[in-house]
Parts: sequence; C-alpha cells; structure tokens
Amino acid sequence: MLNLIQFDYSSSFVLHQFSSSSSLKVADMEKMNGSTKKWGFKANPELNMSSDNTIRGVLYMLLSKLNKSDTRPVIPLGHGDPSAFTCFRTTHVAEDAIVDSIRSAKFNGYGPTVGILPARSAVAEYLSKDLTYQVSADDVFLTLGCTQAIQTIVTVLSSPKANILLPKPGFPYYEVIAKSCQLEVRHFDLLPEKDWEVDLDEVNALADENTVAMVIINPGNPCGNVFTHQHLQTVAETAKKLGILVISDEVYDHITFGKNPFVPMANFASITPIVTLGSISKRWIVPGWRLGWLVVNDPSGILKQHGITDCITAYLNITSDAPTFVQGAVPDILSNTKDDFFSKIVNIIKEAANICYDGVQDVPGIICPSKPEGSMFVMVKLDLSVFEDIKDDVDFCVKLAAEESVIILPGVSVGMNNWLRVTFAIEPSALKDGIKRLKAFCERHSKKP
Amino acid sequence: MLNLIQFDYSSSFVLHQFSSSSSLKVADMEKMNGSTKKWGFKANPELNMSSDNTIRGVLYMLLSKLNKSDTRPVIPLGHGDPSAFTCFRTTHVAEDAIVDSIRSAKFNGYGPTVGILPARSAVAEYLSKDLTYQVSADDVFLTLGCTQAIQTIVTVLSSPKANILLPKPGFPYYEVIAKSCQLEVRHFDLLPEKDWEVDLDEVNALADENTVAMVIINPGNPCGNVFTHQHLQTVAETAKKLGILVISDEVYDHITFGKNPFVPMANFASITPIVTLGSISKRWIVPGWRLGWLVVNDPSGILKQHGITDCITAYLNITSDAPTFVQGAVPDILSNTKDDFFSKIVNIIKEAANICYDGVQDVPGIICPSKPEGSMFVMVKLDLSVFEDIKDDVDFCVKLAAEESVIILPGVSVGMNNWLRVTFAIEPSALKDGIKRLKAFCERHSKKP
Repeated sequence: MLNLIQFDYSSSFVLHQFSSSSSLKVADMEKMNGSTKKWGFKANPELNMSSDNTIRGVLYMLLSKLNKSDTRPVIPLGHGDPSAFTCFRTTHVAEDAIVDSIRSAKFNGYGPTVGILPARSAVAEYLSKDLTYQVSADDVFLTLGCTQAIQTIVTVLSSPKANILLPKPGFPYYEVIAKSCQLEVRHFDLLPEKDWEVDLDEVNALADENTVAMVIINPGNPCGNVFTHQHLQTVAETAKKLGILVISDEVYDHITFGKNPFVPMANFASITPIVTLGSISKRWIVPGWRLGWLVVNDPSGILKQHGITDCITAYLNITSDAPTFVQGAVPDILSNTKDDFFSKIVNIIKEAANICYDGVQDVPGIICPSKPEGSMFVMVKLDLSVFEDIKDDVDFCVKLAAEESVIILPGVSVGMNNWLRVTFAIEPSALKDGIKRLKAFCERHSKKP
Repeated sequence: MLNLIQFDYSSSFVLHQFSSSSSLKVADMEKMNGSTKKWGFKANPELNMSSDNTIRGVLYMLLSKLNKSDTRPVIPLGHGDPSAFTCFRTTHVAEDAIVDSIRSAKFNGYGPTVGILPARSAVAEYLSKDLTYQVSADDVFLTLGCTQAIQTIVTVLSSPKANILLPKPGFPYYEVIAKSCQLEVRHFDLLPEKDWEVDLDEVNALADENTVAMVIINPGNPCGNVFTHQHLQTVAETAKKLGILVISDEVYDHITFGKNPFVPMANFASITPIVTLGSISKRWIVPGWRLGWLVVNDPSGILKQHGITDCITAYLNITSDAPTFVQGAVPDILSNTKDDFFSKIVNIIKEAANICYDGVQDVPGIICPSKPEGSMFVMVKLDLSVFEDIKDDVDFCVKLAAEESVIILPGVSVGMNNWLRVTFAIEPSALKDGIKRLKAFCERHSKKP
C-alpha cells in the first residue's frame, strides 16, 4: 500500500516541480525555438489548488521528506488503510465473491448508472438489519467508494448562494468538492472535552435560510469518537428545526470498541431526511475495491419531492460507475461474511487503539483528550511549548518523517492547527515501533532543563 | 446487459416522474401537514438536463417505450456493448488476470490516483507497439474507463472564455462534460461523402485564440469510419497551425475491418501535442470493467510546460480511481491476450457490419452513405418523404421500439437530425432478426402508392 502511494508521490511530485514556473518555461521555449507561437490551451486554474488539500496530497508531501538512507520500515500512521498488513487481510468470502462474479461472465457489460438491482437490494437488506425500518433498493445508489458518494451528494446540493455545515475537525474531501462546485462551507466545532460531540449551539448560530445540509462522520474520522443515540437524536431534531438535511458519513460503521455502540443515523429519518454514505472499504479492509453507496433515508418523501433523488440519478448518469462485476459480487460479500471475521478485525483495531492511547500518555508534548472508541484514528494535541525547535504541526510531521520514517497527518489538514491525526489501525507490533520512534523524536526535540 | 439497463430505466424513470411537478407537491405536502415549513435544500439545477443528453438517457427513454406484451427478444442496436452475447465473451486470459490479482491480496488497498506503476508501464508498452516512439509510464494516467478519461481532459482544459472543437456527428458525452464545466463547444462537420473525414476548412474557420483543442474519434463513433494516415497527418498539421491540442479518442482502437488500418494519432505527436484516450472496454469486450487510460503524447514537453500534465494529476487526485486490483490485472491482460482472440472478435464484428450494410440496402427510407470499416456503428440517413407517419428520427426510434422491440439510437443524440446510429456489433443471427424487423417496420410505415 505504501509502495503504491510512493509510485504516486514520485510522479505527482516531479510534475508539481514544473507547474510552478510554467509560464517562464514557455517563454524560454519560445525563445529557444526562435518562435513566438502561442498555444491556445492552458490548465484549469482551480484544479491544482484543490488537489493539494486532499489527505493524499499531504501524505505525498510527507513521503517526499522520508530519509532514503533510513533502513527501518516506514510506519504509516497517516491513512485509514491497513490492507497491506497480513493480519488485516480481507475475508476469503469477499475474494470468492469477486472470483465467482468474474467467472460467471454475467457482469462484463455496462451496468445501470445507479447500480445493478441485486446489489442495491443487498445493500438495502444489509443496512436494514440495524434499522427500525426497511430500506428499499430504490433508495440505494451504488458509488465508487465513499469518495464518489460524497462527490455526488455535495454536487447535487450545490446551487447559487447555498451553504453546507461541515465538522471541524473533519474529512477535507468535503471541502474540496464543495469548493469545486462553489458551495459555501461553514464549519461547526466538534468538542474534545465532550468526546467530540457536535457543538449544536454553533450549528444553530451558523445556519441560515441558504443552509442545505450538515455533515456528521460517525464513527468519527478524524476523532475516533462514536456518537450516542441521544446525541444523534438531538442532531436530527436540530436539523429538522433548521430545515436541513443530515449527511451521515458511516464509512467506519461497526468499527466500534468502546462504551457506545454504533447507531445508524437513519434511525432518526422520521425526524429529518438523512442521506447515509457508506462502503465496504473499511469494514472489509478493501478500500482499493472502490465500492460504496449513498442511501436516501426519507420516509416522508421530502427529498424526492424536492427533486433531490432525481438529481442524484442525474449526476450518476454523467459519471463513471463501480465496475459491474464488483457490483455483481456485493450480494455474496454482504450476506455471506461471517461475524467472526468482523470481530477479529475489530479486536485487532481495539488492541491497536489501546496501544496507541497508552503509548502516547508518556510522550512529551502530546496530549490525548479523548480515548478513541471507533474508526481507525485519534486526534492528539501538540503542546508546542514543550519543544525546542518545532514550529507547528506540519513542521512536526515533516521532521518526524525525515528523522524517524513515521508518517502522521498534521492536524491542519483536518482543520485543527497544532494537532495530529494518528492512525492506529496498523499491525500492532509496527504500531508499537511507531510510538517508540514518536517518543524518541519528541524527547529529542524537547527543551532541555 | 439489456436487463442491467432495464433495472436502471425503471428506477430512473419513476424518479423522473416526480421532479417535473415537485414544487407543487411540496406545497401540497405543506398544506397537508398544516405546516409552512420550508426545507433549505434544493437540487442542483444544471444536473438533470445534462444527464438526459447522454446516450444512456436516450436509451432508457426508448426502453420505456417497449411493448411489454411483445414476447420476442429485444434487439439492442443502440449501444456499443456486445458483452451479453456468448460469441463476444472476453478471453479467459483477462478473467484469469482479475482472479490472480484478487487472490494475490496485493491490490486491496488504495492505489495512487494516477494508477499503479506496473499498470501504467504495461499500457505504455502496449501502445508503443503501434508507435514510432516509446511512450513512458509517466505519460500514462489510468482512468475509470474512457468516460473518466474524457471527463479529465475536458475539465483540465476548461478555463474562462476557452472553447473546444467537437465533431458532428460525435459522442455526446463530450458536450455533457464541457457544459458542466462551462467550456464553450463549437462543432465541425464530419463529411459523409468523404468517408466521414473532418471538414478541416470548417475547423480553420471555427478556431480562434481561445480554442484549446479539437477532438477526433478514430475508429469512428458514431460513423464506423477509419481515418487514413494522410488525413490524420493533415489534422495534426492543422492543429499545429492553430496552436491547439488534438484529443484522439481511440477507445475502438484495432476494431477495423476495411481498407484503412488503424493508425494511432500519437504517431503525429512530433507535429502537435496529442492526448490519446483509450480503454480495454471495447477490444476486450469488458466495458463493465471500467478500465481506461489517458495518455499524454508530447515529445516536445509543451503540455508539461503549460501545466496540463500537472493539472491532469491534480484532477485525478480529487476523483475516484479504478479499483486497485483491476489495475493489478492490467499487465497480464495486455501482455498475455492472444491475437486469435482479437481476430475472432474483429471477424464477428466484420461479418455483422456486412449483414447490417447489405441488409439496409433494400429497406425503404434508409440510406447508408458509407460502408462501416471500424468500431461497432454505422450512421444511416432517414428519407422521411418515404414514410406516411414518421415525424423525425426520435419518432422513428420510439415507434420502432414500441412496435418491433428494436432499439436504435436517434441521430439527434449524436448531433444529426433524421439520421440513425445503428450498432451492428451484436450476435449475427440477432442482428439479422433486427434488420428484418426494421425492414418490416419501414415497409409498414411507407406511403402507399
């Protein structure tokens, strides 16, 4: 996995060297050619900026800082993809389902843009098991991972003057897509002292007649928190009062190991319309399979009546679909996977979460306000006063990558300056090694008495 | 395959019934609820229109016109996907490659946004076999089928005031994406009397200082033509003179069976920058696998110096990738497929092209100006004066679907009113049946003497 990323940063970074001084280069070239020829094309000005703001963009930057002469393995605490570690290999049930789908030769052709019916039905049934009502296949739209689900709902909700409420800290891809379709973004805080619950007073203060939706991510990325039933209900009631949609990003659904069980937001759909985003990426540890979904939970038909469901179909009609044969495997993947696979994975992640939480307790300059209880991440605060020569979170992460070959995401990329998002979902022994290096790094950079 | 589409049109059409009168419904609902509550969200106004213009959109409309009580099989002459027919089953080499990739468990994680290096290298090698120079892996960007390749290059070239030159007839997805990013579209004709060659005088007349690129599709969709070496060279020289990029859509590469061999546009990259779009969808008959590519053929480094290659990476960084395990299968698929598979497929398509061309000769009201020599399509002209009760090409296709369960794409959806795009790449006996029904339909609707 890390190798895969390295392929990319290498090419992607070489490329980035060019653009900066491109205009100059053109002039030079024209001189060299002794020509004054002008080419008509130029690059879309908005794109380069957006892409640097993605988590991938930041990780590529950090990977470029690695010290190639460090012979120790790189410890990837930067992204939510443990698939490279043997202990996180997906179930044979999922692999078999793909193989059977390919061998059937029934899924080589174009599929419908909203997804093939058997797969939509399977997702509806899978989700309904945790719900107080039955989701219909018509409410399920298959997407290319959760990424395309986010892209779809944000694009669908974009219209002149509209704004959307996003959590801080959050998942930066929402901002990237909102910017790309000129949807105004307003941030509400998640409160570390309250297990990262939503600051609902702030939501009430931010919302106006042009607010279309609020986003929650549960289990939490980047905070590793799990919202209580009570809190989710209050979120739904607040949204109803404000007349906005709740987009519930549940890509880490069921990856919980603390006091709060996972509660699907859709259980509050009778209060306010809910759009649930999900995927097999995390629970099955197959993010590279790119199979996700967008589900409209709208028993009162409000979204349909406002043309939102139509518009979701319309958007999917003009974008690419998940491969048909991957969709063809979905029914088997969702219905045949055994609970012992899920519990094995969650137990390893729980063990890792404990190693991480306990491990950082005696690391100077790092404070962890809230023990992670779900997802694959925890947010820790930097106390910069402890350090001799660390300017900010980015400086911390760049030096950490260069000196210890440990990749951690700077908080600024999830909206929190001078915090870090630490991914603990990796093979436990590698995690221990990573925490040890982190500790050595922080001690080395601490002010001397 | 048809079944897959039918799933979709059913859901998609039900949805479309709603949107039309949505505002009324909301008002009603609010009355019913005795509430005056306003919801803050509304659908993105631009999306619904765009999606109706896709070929899929039109096909769904035609499928909705089928007479359910007609017990004959539906004959799908509307889309370029013969994968549902046994004689067009893909090679076991490709199926094995996917199976091996999944079983290796090496490709379950996120890949780099530009594609994994082994797959990029394999595509570079595959394309270089037909080229006078060696494509480098860095010039290859993997995409979700050719669809995302089109979306990428069109979005990357969009900037205020820019315009792009598209062929008429053409592939409507280019218009859809250009509209979605406010890139002005100008159309140049393809000339039926000249085997659908580009009207270069018109290209010269249309281009101005804001023209960024021209698109050619070779082998031709929808025309079934194959450009000569000489014509492609003239296209390149024209583009160089105008200072524009040539986007060469070669998704039907090597599907040729007439006097002209397939010549990759990239062979003229020393004249002007070329971006080649391609995919395994058509040659391997696996459009549902969603694996395509965008290749920058730019020996003089002009696109790099203008930041275009950067911008391609930036765009791919914020969109979804082809599943990593599909990318993992690409080297085996491209290098191990035997020529006899390709020639078997091309021979069936050639036989079908002949059946289609010969078959329409004595169909009243249908004129075929140019025998197809490539791709999977032919354009035929309607002589409406022959018919008693056919208003236009859409009326023709709607009635044909309703009366004969034959699906043909009206020319208007590819830019030619009162023409038809006929897909001949289906199982030959089904094609014969379709032509027979087409003939019966045209005779039935002809003016009586």
